[in-house]
Parts: sequence; structure tokens; C-alpha cells
Amino acid sequence: MKPVQLVVVGSIGLDTIETPHARKSEILGGSVSYACAGASFFATTGMVGVVGADFPEPCVDVYRQFGIDLKGLQKAPGKTFRWSGVYEQDMNNRRTLATDLNVLGTFMPELPDDYTRAPFLFLANISPELQLHVLSQVKSPKFVVADTMDLWINIARKPLMEVISAVDLLTLNESEARLLSGENNLIKAARMILGCGPKYVIIKKGEHGAMLFSKSGMFIVHAYPLEVVHDPTGAGDTFAGGFMGALSERGDVNEAAIRKAMSYGSVVASFGVEDFSLARLQNLSRSDIEQRHEAFRALTHLG
Amino acid sequence: MKPVQLVVVGSIGLDTIETPHARKSEILGGSVSYACAGASFFATTGMVGVVGADFPEPCVDVYRQFGIDLKGLQKAPGKTFRWSGVYEQDMNNRRTLATDLNVLGTFMPELPDDYTRAPFLFLANISPELQLHVLSQVKSPKFVVADTMDLWINIARKPLMEVISAVDLLTLNESEARLLSGENNLIKAARMILGCGPKYVIIKKGEHGAMLFSKSGMFIVHAYPLEVVHDPTGAGDTFAGGFMGALSERGDVNEAAIRKAMSYGSVVASFGVEDFSLARLQNLSRSDIEQRHEAFRALTHLG
Repeated sequence: MKPVQLVVVGSIGLDTIETPHARKSEILGGSVSYACAGASFFATTGMVGVVGADFPEPCVDVYRQFGIDLKGLQKAPGKTFRWSGVYEQDMNNRRTLATDLNVLGTFMPELPDDYTRAPFLFLANISPELQLHVLSQVKSPKFVVADTMDLWINIARKPLMEVISAVDLLTLNESEARLLSGENNLIKAARMILGCGPKYVIIKKGEHGAMLFSKSGMFIVHAYPLEVVHDPTGAGDTFAGGFMGALSERGDVNEAAIRKAMSYGSVVASFGVEDFSLARLQNLSRSDIEQRHEAFRALTHLG
Repeated sequence: MKPVQLVVVGSIGLDTIETPHARKSEILGGSVSYACAGASFFATTGMVGVVGADFPEPCVDVYRQFGIDLKGLQKAPGKTFRWSGVYEQDMNNRRTLATDLNVLGTFMPELPDDYTRAPFLFLANISPELQLHVLSQVKSPKFVVADTMDLWINIARKPLMEVISAVDLLTLNESEARLLSGENNLIKAARMILGCGPKYVIIKKGEHGAMLFSKSGMFIVHAYPLEVVHDPTGAGDTFAGGFMGALSERGDVNEAAIRKAMSYGSVVASFGVEDFSLARLQNLSRSDIEQRHEAFRALTHLG
């Protein structure tokens, strides 16, 4: 097997999701599921996460189908993490109905030996304490990215700031950037976050795309516009996974590579929301991605 | 004087605006003011609008300073149109406090003879009945664009549909596109509107940019990201004015020209919101615009 180029740590969950059009029960989700699936089109990706004794074997087969390296997947006694939520008519708005941490509550991510030397590391959304525990195990990775969420900004700001100061790039969404920085304007918010350590910040804006900030400037990328969105769950994770996969494939990191990788992340995420869970990604080929990437270029070409 | 390339009809108002940072009383505003100012950097622009006897002479001087042709500017007995509104902390949200139509209530736009032969016509936001009255006066213009607002969709849908069926391009914002079409998804909304007649639809998304739809496809353009926005009033009008000016300057209309013109509209609008009323535009040169247009290109270059 090829050496793992990218390690992703995050949550694995069974999601129950209601949209204006459908309701799905106990489907495969979690930040690491979406991120690894998104990355798998570009790079050999190793997953670090935990499932309970009740985790359905077909879900593991889904991971295998993506070619994800599963040496870092732990199975613990107890139940798998559960999340349920409901989307409004405007699917930009959703409400969480229930969160049951279960085995995620006592998860301690341990990296298989070869993962500690992987050049790319993505700390997907999970508690900052666990992100720090993973950081303590890696041996001089080339590029480390962390994602986070409002919950950790609210209840675990101190360890989160430690994570932020230690990574190369932080990714978070608009409202989280405002919450973290106390700044309403995104340029000011990003500058404040850059001041805390990372070389880059990506602010995700959902259907409006994403913005990259660095000390040297800014870059903005659209989301690929879709006529039908079946389930936006995990779109940000799929974006980040596709981004990290594309960056890992390229190998060297610079602003041009990051821009290009963001456009791939955007394209992969646009496929992901076309169906629930990983269903659309399971039926996706690299050439589908390249084709939409070309269409995406044409769509945004100033002429 | 050069022949008028672009005619713009719309409202002229004295606005009282409160933002989280400042309050300005009775400043020059209205759709035709912003649109003509935006267009004036690119094309000889004729203004069709009405003011009351109380309209301050310095405001007319502002129009002259932009080189706007004022043969179509009527002065009527009575008071000038007034609008007042207040912006929330998130300046994407605003509330109208008062609207006093005054002379706008009995306005009947009449085109000076040479305006009827101008190749480009922009029907800025004003009642669809008045837009139709202007349309009845023009002699085979090359390209006609109309803007509208939620009010007319709600109270004057029938004449508005007549306008839509008669123009080449309709511009409106996201929520208006949803209201007009009954479709939440913007691609579906645009397709429904295209089915009513125009060759193009531009959906304006404020700080998230704008989308162009035609029978042959789609194009998306960002808004130029700003660190400080002093007053978003009129941004959509300035965008449309800059767009129509750039298109008129080029002369021939095709999708590549429209894309390029949208990027200029976006850039001019980004300057407009940096100050109240037309203040920033009054201190703007064509080379400032070209410089930011270059920066805009770099900012969105996929690499």
C-alpha cells in the first residue's frame, strides 16, 4: 500500500437528518467521514476516529470503497456518536435536535506509527484538546490545517487558541470567524486570527464560497452553483477534505497551490451535497471532478 | 457635446440614513443618481428624473461634476422625494423608516429627442408603469436593462411582467428573484424569469457578488471585499450603472462583454459604499477603477 500522504482526525457519527424534502435515519456522517471521502480522490488518506460496537459493518465498507486507510480507526465498547438535525426551507439554516457523544466522549486519538510521519495533517472538527493530543504525536509535518466550530469557541477557547497558534492554516465559517474574533467584518476578523499564529485562514461562506487570507493578501473562490441541494450536512468538511487532498497530491505548498486546491475543494463539496451522507461521492470519479472543475473555471472566467 | 450613449431613468431622492457608525440627513440619493454616477466613468450618460422646487442646487452641481447630461432632468413644483432608513449592526439588513414620494408621485418621464435614439437604456428602479412609458418612447435601442424592487413585485406585478417581457436583461436581488419566481433556488428562479422574455437575468447578492443567467449558461462574479463599508445605500444601482456604462463604452453586446462589464460594475460599486451618497465616487478617477479592477482579477485568479 502507498504511504499515507494525509492524515485526518475527526468525528464519526450516525446522523438523522430532516430536510424540507426527505428524512434519513442513522446515516453515515461525522467530520472525518466527509473529509476523508473528499480527500480520497486525490491522496492516500488515513483516518483517525472512533466508532462504537454498534457501528454497521457496511459503513466500514464504504470507507474501504474510498480506499481510505483505516489503521487509525478505533472500535470502542458502547454506542457510536449520534447527531440529529433539521433543515429549514432555506437550507442555509438548520437546528440541532440532539447530540449524543457516546464513545466520542472518551475518545483518545492515537496515531499509528506511519501516520506520525505523514506530510499533511487535517485536524477536522473535534475538541481542541483532542486536536492538541494529535499534534503532540506528529513528527514535523509539512502542513497542518485545523477546523473548529462555535461550540469550542464558546466552551474551550483556551485550548483552541493553542491549536490555532500551532497550525499552518485555520478553517472556520463566517459566523465562527466573527465569534472568535469579535469582529463583524471578515477582513478584520481574518487579520485578528492571523495575528494568533497561522499563516493562512480560510473563511467558509457556504453557498457563497470561501475566502483565503494570508499576510500577503486575499483570495476568493465561489461555491459551484447547484440547482438541487439534497443535504448540506458535511459540506464544509468535504470542502476541507478535497482541499487537503488536492494540496497533498501536489505536495508543495504555496499560495498558488492553495488557491487551486480550494477550487477543487469547492467542486468536491458541490457533489457531496447532491445526496445524503457519502452517497454522491461513492458514485463519483476523478474525471467527473475534473469535468466540473473545468465548468467551474468557465463559470467564473471574467473574459 | 458627445451624443448620449446611455440613458438612465429612475428616482432622485434626498435620503436620511443611519448606520451603526453615523447618521446623515437629506443627502443626495435615488436610483438614477447612483446609476448615472456609476455609468459616467465609462459613457456619456443622460439622466431622466424629477426633483422638487426644494432640490438643492449643489446637488445639481454634483451631477454636472460627473459630466451627466441633464436635459432629461425635470423640476416640478412641490417637494423632492424623501427616503429614510436605518442599518443594523450587520449592514446587510436595513429597515425603511419613511418614504415620501412627493413629486415622484406624479412624475411622467419624457425623453429629450436625442435620448430616444440612444443605443443603451437602463430603466433603474421606479414604478413599472413609468418604465413602460419610457420604453414607448425609445426607437430600437440596442440593449435595454430594467431593475425593479419587491414593492413592484407585490403591488404592480402585471405591468412589471410587461416590462420584463420587453427588456433584454432584468436585474434584481436575491430575495426579489425568489419573490418574483416563487422559487427558492436561484438557478430555478432565473430560469423561470428567462422564460418570461429577457435574454439575461442578473441576480445581485450584495457582498456576495452577482450571478448572470442566460439561455446558454451562467456566470458568477464576486463583490470586491472591503474592510470598511460606510453606507451600502445605492450599491445595487451603482453596480448596474457601472455595468451599463462599461457595456455602452464597449458598444457591442455579447456574453464576454457582459461578464467584463459586470466586473467593472462590481468594482465601481465597491468604491461607492466607502462613503455616503456619491462622495467617494466624486473623488474617483478612471485609473483608480482600473487599478482596483486589476486587484480584483488577481484576487479571484484560480492560479
